[in-house]
Amino acid sequence: MRMDNYSHEIINDDTRLQLFFLPVSTDSSCSPLHWHGHLEILLMQKGYMTACVNEQKYTLKKDDMLVVNPKELHTTKTWGSAGYLLLQIPYDYLSRVLDHVSLIQFQEFFPSITMNSTQHRLLDCLVELSEIYEKKEDGYLLHFSSVVYEFLYILYRNHSHRISRQAREKANYNFERIEEVIHYVKSNYKKEISLNEAAGLLNVSPEYFCRLFKKQTGQTFLEYLNAVRLLHFHQDLLDTDYSINDLLTRNGITNYKVFMRAFKDTYGTTPGRIRAQVKD
Amino acid sequence: MRMDNYSHEIINDDTRLQLFFLPVSTDSSCSPLHWHGHLEILLMQKGYMTACVNEQKYTLKKDDMLVVNPKELHTTKTWGSAGYLLLQIPYDYLSRVLDHVSLIQFQEFFPSITMNSTQHRLLDCLVELSEIYEKKEDGYLLHFSSVVYEFLYILYRNHSHRISRQAREKANYNFERIEEVIHYVKSNYKKEISLNEAAGLLNVSPEYFCRLFKKQTGQTFLEYLNAVRLLHFHQDLLDTDYSINDLLTRNGITNYKVFMRAFKDTYGTTPGRIRAQVKD
Repeated sequence: MRMDNYSHEIINDDTRLQLFFLPVSTDSSCSPLHWHGHLEILLMQKGYMTACVNEQKYTLKKDDMLVVNPKELHTTKTWGSAGYLLLQIPYDYLSRVLDHVSLIQFQEFFPSITMNSTQHRLLDCLVELSEIYEKKEDGYLLHFSSVVYEFLYILYRNHSHRISRQAREKANYNFERIEEVIHYVKSNYKKEISLNEAAGLLNVSPEYFCRLFKKQTGQTFLEYLNAVRLLHFHQDLLDTDYSINDLLTRNGITNYKVFMRAFKDTYGTTPGRIRAQVKD
Repeated sequence: MRMDNYSHEIINDDTRLQLFFLPVSTDSSCSPLHWHGHLEILLMQKGYMTACVNEQKYTLKKDDMLVVNPKELHTTKTWGSAGYLLLQIPYDYLSRVLDHVSLIQFQEFFPSITMNSTQHRLLDCLVELSEIYEKKEDGYLLHFSSVVYEFLYILYRNHSHRISRQAREKANYNFERIEEVIHYVKSNYKKEISLNEAAGLLNVSPEYFCRLFKKQTGQTFLEYLNAVRLLHFHQDLLDTDYSINDLLTRNGITNYKVFMRAFKDTYGTTPGRIRAQVKD
């Protein structure tokens, strides 16, 4: 799955279903800090994923389920060959059938090892969705919709809680501040970005900025900045014929050694080998 | 259930659910020939109903289910104290999840006496809907939607067939002709309407008109005309203080004896008694 726009993950709402569902197969892939207005559900089917939602880190293996609430900052990274089911429910889809959606907080992590009966039913629903989606029998959208609503009903009744308006407002305030930084990085990653500069966006000291960013996103600002540059570098490697040295410069990458280690960590190979494969 | 506009039955689409559901309790009630763009499902729970859909007549008792396809002319009449579940699905709701909805013809009548397992499941779905609707627990619209889609899926997969484009066009043509007559009656029932006049609308002879109307609607033109006048007379009896004689004249009713018999047949009482009750 390519991420052309990594800050708002691309969601192809099926105009008929009004939601997005996809069984994803991928080799080592990474999607840096991003957010979207959708409720996202992820069921791991093969391999491993690490995910960070707000300040919380999770490792997902087969049958673990992750729920990302709307507008929550998150990062995902798969390791080696991985497969998962991805279901994204638009905010409007929820607010048509639920009151005060903005005050609903769904449980985030459902590890398979501690699953109870309602969690098992949730997992079964997702597997059923993938079977319906696979077969696409006549009338399958009716069946699909029925199971999606059943899933949401069980999730809502058993694995959600209300948060207060104050808590939501505070979360929104923190979210908007980090969003401003993300937006800035997205527009300026090609050039050098100093901590002072980033902290200046929020009118706070560099020290406070570092703590805030790490607390809200689970990663340091530098880790995030490097991840954005890494993603663009990798994309350019596939899409252009600029030399690797050119691409380093064009994507604002200065610390070659640190960068190469991160690249190998993420893609399991070197830029040179990827370029050679593309040319073949 | 009042019918203020009897030609297009009033459908209060719930803006959130995007469909209409109502457990109906009624004493002798009658809804003359009408149609709507919705798919209508009716499950009898108490008492009796006679229904006429296109040229077909049905008698419904407890647990019998009737499905009226979109844009089909139909009449319903309950006898004595009756109760039923009414589910109406907008055409758009269907076309979002089904291809070529206009060519789908759902089975009309599901008598309880010959029910198989899928029919039983349909019945269970409707009863489940009424329980969900009754309780209105937090999140009930999710549950409700799930069951509605399950119902439609079972109905579509097991109790529908495709009709040809030619058959649909012919049905549409016949429908439009009768619709023109219905519209005319609705606007002119207060004055005398002769068979010649009605037949003239379709440029056919009175004899052919009578056969056509009876074939398409299951009732004679005169029966239909009387039913419209009866409904308006009854409504005025409740809503105005005009004398009964005035109301007869104002609603184009000339044959007093025939009319009184029909009134007693439908409402189980006389106009005089109803007027006396209203005044109490």
